[in-house]
Amino acid sequence: MTETLRSDALRRGRPGYDQRGILEVAVAAFNEHGYDATSIGMLADRLGLSKSAIYHHVASKDELLGLALDEALDGLEGVLRAPEATTGAASDRLAFVLRGAVRVLADRLPYVTLLLRVRGNTDVERAALARRRAFDHAVAELVAEARAEGSLRTDADPAVVARLLFGMINSLTEWYTPAGPLTPDDLADTILALALR
Amino acid sequence: MTETLRSDALRRGRPGYDQRGILEVAVAAFNEHGYDATSIGMLADRLGLSKSAIYHHVASKDELLGLALDEALDGLEGVLRAPEATTGAASDRLAFVLRGAVRVLADRLPYVTLLLRVRGNTDVERAALARRRAFDHAVAELVAEARAEGSLRTDADPAVVARLLFGMINSLTEWYTPAGPLTPDDLADTILALALR
Repeated sequence: MTETLRSDALRRGRPGYDQRGILEVAVAAFNEHGYDATSIGMLADRLGLSKSAIYHHVASKDELLGLALDEALDGLEGVLRAPEATTGAASDRLAFVLRGAVRVLADRLPYVTLLLRVRGNTDVERAALARRRAFDHAVAELVAEARAEGSLRTDADPAVVARLLFGMINSLTEWYTPAGPLTPDDLADTILALALR
Repeated sequence: MTETLRSDALRRGRPGYDQRGILEVAVAAFNEHGYDATSIGMLADRLGLSKSAIYHHVASKDELLGLALDEALDGLEGVLRAPEATTGAASDRLAFVLRGAVRVLADRLPYVTLLLRVRGNTDVERAALARRRAFDHAVAELVAEARAEGSLRTDADPAVVARLLFGMINSLTEWYTPAGPLTPDDLADTILALALR
């Protein structure tokens, strides 16, 4: 949401936000101030909307959080369900999943950033953590298969290797800017060069 | 600081905290609630001390933050200054630095966790970030030398490789428990197997 779009919406007197636009502004605020410290009133100020206009689109702040976490998790789970993740050599499937995760992270950066900060304080957060654990478990399975195939550089516990590989990928949320010179595929190439034989 | 020590100190009526003990409790509180949300009054409650007893040991909350960040940064900078980090083949020096960083992280886990959350909101935080950048820069130099030597698995930008390697190492703050079965050296072995030829 750019400043121009926002001021256009204000000028017209009929702010053009749909649920998606509200979600984008909410996720930016959650990442900047923390979920707990962000109120619907703060979002209303940022959007130039009344609180009741926001409640026309979403039932609660909790629903916004759930929608935001779905955005990250649906993307990651979509990678795992693709045919390239389910058939073929384990090293190819693992490479596809790591590359796909980098792409989801780059495409949905604020949503994945938010997901990585979730600590399980509410039902919505606990449900997201359960989905994240299932994702991690599936990656660890792939690492185990790649190790059995001999295509991994280490004999360490597959769950530890999966955590370290995603440590690398998730650290992109600390410094990666999609507008910069590095494409998600460049980054994925580097990560795969480090991870696989 | 264990519960037993704390209740002993309370029972004796002369709480046995020195600056170090206060620092440990402060860092745990900063990591749990955030630096901004932690007050000297909260620390006094946790410690079973009066606020003035705390001010006997430290001038301010800001000083506690500075001491805590020094603890992490002194450890990391100490690794860079060791003879094994300054002489020999670049791949050996890089391996020594990565292994040393894992050990510092494991030994000083709450302090490094706090350092990784610093965003530069105060002079103390900005000074810590400058030291962290200098550390990252030195690691990127080592990566460049190891690449020139042919001992790295990728031709990518050394600064990017350094960030990814430390992404892996720093992600340990999310899940590593020093009391668990994995030693810092086990973890360093796995990280080095991924990073170096």
